[in-house]
Amino acid sequence: MTYQSARSIVLKSRPVGEPVDANFSIMETAIPPIGEGQVLVETLWLSLDPYMREHMNVGTPDAPGVEIGQPMRADTVGRILHSRDPGMVLGDIVTGYTFWQTHTVCDANELRKLDPHIAPPRTALSILGMTGMTAYMGLLRIGKPTSGETVVVAAATGPVGSVVAQIARRQGCRVVGIAGGVDKCSYLLEQLSLDGAVNHHDPDLKRLLAEACPAGIDVYFENVGGRVWQAVLPLLNNFARVPVCGQIAHYSDIGTPPGPNQMPAMMETILDRRLMLQGFMVFDFEAEADSFRAEMAEWLRSGEIINLEDITDGLDHAPSRFVGMLKGHNFGKTLIRVAAD
Amino acid sequence: MTYQSARSIVLKSRPVGEPVDANFSIMETAIPPIGEGQVLVETLWLSLDPYMREHMNVGTPDAPGVEIGQPMRADTVGRILHSRDPGMVLGDIVTGYTFWQTHTVCDANELRKLDPHIAPPRTALSILGMTGMTAYMGLLRIGKPTSGETVVVAAATGPVGSVVAQIARRQGCRVVGIAGGVDKCSYLLEQLSLDGAVNHHDPDLKRLLAEACPAGIDVYFENVGGRVWQAVLPLLNNFARVPVCGQIAHYSDIGTPPGPNQMPAMMETILDRRLMLQGFMVFDFEAEADSFRAEMAEWLRSGEIINLEDITDGLDHAPSRFVGMLKGHNFGKTLIRVAAD
Repeated sequence: MTYQSARSIVLKSRPVGEPVDANFSIMETAIPPIGEGQVLVETLWLSLDPYMREHMNVGTPDAPGVEIGQPMRADTVGRILHSRDPGMVLGDIVTGYTFWQTHTVCDANELRKLDPHIAPPRTALSILGMTGMTAYMGLLRIGKPTSGETVVVAAATGPVGSVVAQIARRQGCRVVGIAGGVDKCSYLLEQLSLDGAVNHHDPDLKRLLAEACPAGIDVYFENVGGRVWQAVLPLLNNFARVPVCGQIAHYSDIGTPPGPNQMPAMMETILDRRLMLQGFMVFDFEAEADSFRAEMAEWLRSGEIINLEDITDGLDHAPSRFVGMLKGHNFGKTLIRVAAD
Repeated sequence: MTYQSARSIVLKSRPVGEPVDANFSIMETAIPPIGEGQVLVETLWLSLDPYMREHMNVGTPDAPGVEIGQPMRADTVGRILHSRDPGMVLGDIVTGYTFWQTHTVCDANELRKLDPHIAPPRTALSILGMTGMTAYMGLLRIGKPTSGETVVVAAATGPVGSVVAQIARRQGCRVVGIAGGVDKCSYLLEQLSLDGAVNHHDPDLKRLLAEACPAGIDVYFENVGGRVWQAVLPLLNNFARVPVCGQIAHYSDIGTPPGPNQMPAMMETILDRRLMLQGFMVFDFEAEADSFRAEMAEWLRSGEIINLEDITDGLDHAPSRFVGMLKGHNFGKTLIRVAAD
């Protein structure tokens, strides 16, 4: 065993509101002994996802946050450096839920082997992983759009939104993306061929969205909350469906925001328009993971769906990339290349 | 033709906030001529329902309110006094969407004939009508409770809530009713044999509801909004379903209520617990009306379901009963007996 120490990004302090780089620090730790049935994995790719912001809070008894001084958790892709499990050998490429760190010792059965011939291994963290599957299940199992319906996607150049938008187009829907900035909107129109794109930084968001959706909205893929949701709500058609997948605008909220209280009006709209809102998490659909991966890998190979990735080299940049991602600075799925694959 | 005039309750002025008796007045009008294919109906029973509060507002271009000086609309049961349609004869008992008035001339095809041998005709306005069907469809098609789950019903001695509670009991659920007052709660426990009853006037509503639902809430039949909904929300289990049927607490709201703004927290709860909220209106299920009526009539005959009715004699009392109903003074379905049947 020549591997002595791992480098980790640990939570140094809990953010109040938006996180900053200073909430994290780098720590070197000795690699623990590898037990029977365990493996040592070298991290190659690290996935950064908005839900991690919630891990930085104290959390609840059911869902406690990361402890101060402990490494942040993440989905990663890695390479087996040493195996004490008969199912894994040196050089195997695997994915699992590990840590923001260079090396991890864990049980082999917590990892899933990847076949690099099907798709580049890092796609297990993006379009063939949690984010692609979130888009697929939320849109097709909850939103259930039919050809000709109008689908609106928030954070449409994000890792989930960009896949939702492309699947909806494939279904024959009229697709309008909402994104932050003129460049992102141009990308949606020119590269993803959406029917409309609206910049959520524009103070005239409500009017622009209404103009982009002359027949109203049948499916809204909710990723963000905040003023985007408030602009969408009045445009939802009777029997519209709203898969609720994220609330990125609120992950850093402190306490309950000031009034007016929009909850009663929202409940009245749900009633009057017979809306269906449904929260979901991708792991509720684990039983369908294999069939999802097979179908999406095919769409990727055929070029029907483009995989948008925002890649940065070096574990040490994970904190600043995470902070930037929550501000919308990413373009597609945020990945850290921890080591060359 | 010996019938010269009808008595109507008309909207005299639009209420600001809660309606009062002075918003209505009584008007005598000449009965119009009966055209080919039309009938003259004598109103026997008048249904009063919370949604009528919305008809008293100016409304929207799509759903305009009742005009000032015009009669209020209602589901009614009546008797044919004169027919110029081959399908109806003197004495037929019918139901339809007519007016708060003693006599109505309308097209025969706007009415549905009732068979008094199946159930008392007034039940077409209560348990075999819109309110019973609202309960049935909302609970069984949207809430979908399974045996052993906890179902919470707001306004549980109301016309819809009392039926929801009884159907849920019949499904083998643990049923907790919320109602306004100690007497109503006793009724729920003793007459409807619910597992729990909570008085929403109690300032300790949140704690009492939590105690009545030790295993959380799987289905909440939402009828009221306001502080009842706020007490329910934290208790909803993962994958709970919320059929949204009414918002009686808000029908008389003026403008948007003050903060804090609870909408972001509600969206986060929908996400974290994977809740499903769905608004519905009973007429969306019209295709199932016949099978509903057959099944409910059987439950009624067998005594499995009790029909709670709150009956007042005389059309002139309709305004004060309507005002009282919005304050929760009714016990079961509010009906006005306009003439003896």
